[in-house]
Amino acid sequence: MVRLYHVALSPFCRKVRLTLAEKKIEVELVEERYWEQSPDFLRRNPAGKVPVMRWDSRTLSESQAICEWLEETVPQPPLFPRDADGRYEVRRLCAWFDDKFHEDVTSKLLYERVNKKVMGLGYPDSKNVKFGATRIKYHLDYMAWLLDQRRWLAGDQMTLADFAAAAHLSCLDYISDVDWNRQPAVREWYAKIKSRPSFRAILADQVPGFPPPAHYADLDF
Amino acid sequence: MVRLYHVALSPFCRKVRLTLAEKKIEVELVEERYWEQSPDFLRRNPAGKVPVMRWDSRTLSESQAICEWLEETVPQPPLFPRDADGRYEVRRLCAWFDDKFHEDVTSKLLYERVNKKVMGLGYPDSKNVKFGATRIKYHLDYMAWLLDQRRWLAGDQMTLADFAAAAHLSCLDYISDVDWNRQPAVREWYAKIKSRPSFRAILADQVPGFPPPAHYADLDF
Repeated sequence: MVRLYHVALSPFCRKVRLTLAEKKIEVELVEERYWEQSPDFLRRNPAGKVPVMRWDSRTLSESQAICEWLEETVPQPPLFPRDADGRYEVRRLCAWFDDKFHEDVTSKLLYERVNKKVMGLGYPDSKNVKFGATRIKYHLDYMAWLLDQRRWLAGDQMTLADFAAAAHLSCLDYISDVDWNRQPAVREWYAKIKSRPSFRAILADQVPGFPPPAHYADLDF
Repeated sequence: MVRLYHVALSPFCRKVRLTLAEKKIEVELVEERYWEQSPDFLRRNPAGKVPVMRWDSRTLSESQAICEWLEETVPQPPLFPRDADGRYEVRRLCAWFDDKFHEDVTSKLLYERVNKKVMGLGYPDSKNVKFGATRIKYHLDYMAWLLDQRRWLAGDQMTLADFAAAAHLSCLDYISDVDWNRQPAVREWYAKIKSRPSFRAILADQVPGFPPPAHYADLDF
């Protein structure tokens, strides 16, 4: 039995959900209001964050460590290339999105617009929202530059780096914060990844009080 | 030829320096004032952060991705166990220190006291310093709890998790922000790791304007 404690609009949870779905592992999703830091939840993960994955008797946390563990224990289909340089590039880009993109964009747009409201922390800070809206352009341009040289973000093979990126962008697309017209190469890349069966559950997500725009689940945008 | 662009009191750079030294790889250290974001530096790493490692014609960034690449290309001595569960635990703890400990403690103490001054960003914010000084206690207790069950942080073998933790704690020890009397088990663990040959260069670091305390380089504290 695999159970994932998550929230719908967390890019870290989505990265793990996509990895599980690509590897055809069925998972029971349990919504976790992690910001309430219930004692039960802190016992499962003292870091107090989602995702937390239950796998038989194991309790695993930290999205990147979980995805690497899944890759090692369920190798098919592979989400990392076999050579060290290729694997480095996947990990560099996962860190790029989960660290830099998260700091520049996700925390400034999604957390201001959605998380603050859900957690009862007040209104979005317009300075942050403006900063995020400016920075996402730079990131979309960087992705287009990568995709100009490669079929997928980390190389010619689809990898965890694509899911890390798509996890962030899909959360932002849910609140209409991605300008898909800016970089046709990024739009094409997202259309490819969005049409994968592993993406279906993500496109069906519904957050109470935040209905997604019509294009969110539309495979043709 | 291996060259590392770094700053002396960066835990992320120290983690890579320790990994290189354990694997007996000679490295030329180049101090990089990364916060000035020179065009040359941004060309090497568009994320604008240290460490950046030059390895023959390669330019590698992101400390965890670099360490994983080093482990795959220079496997001896191993800094990860061989089983997936053990490797997961190493990665979880690296993320614990580089993410949670960094956010709770390193950014609140080291960055307030040292980085702000070096970068010309003004005086420490006493609220942050107080927060960091409180949180480090919780982290030292967590480490002691781990070390009560294991010889090293991630298990009975010394791993990258120990170097990730020691990288943060050694930076904080440089500014006398670690209470080594709080948890004897943590003190013993640090004494063991501090006396390794790989630690020598770290203990010899000198930051202009911030002389280290006498105990910093003392192997008996």
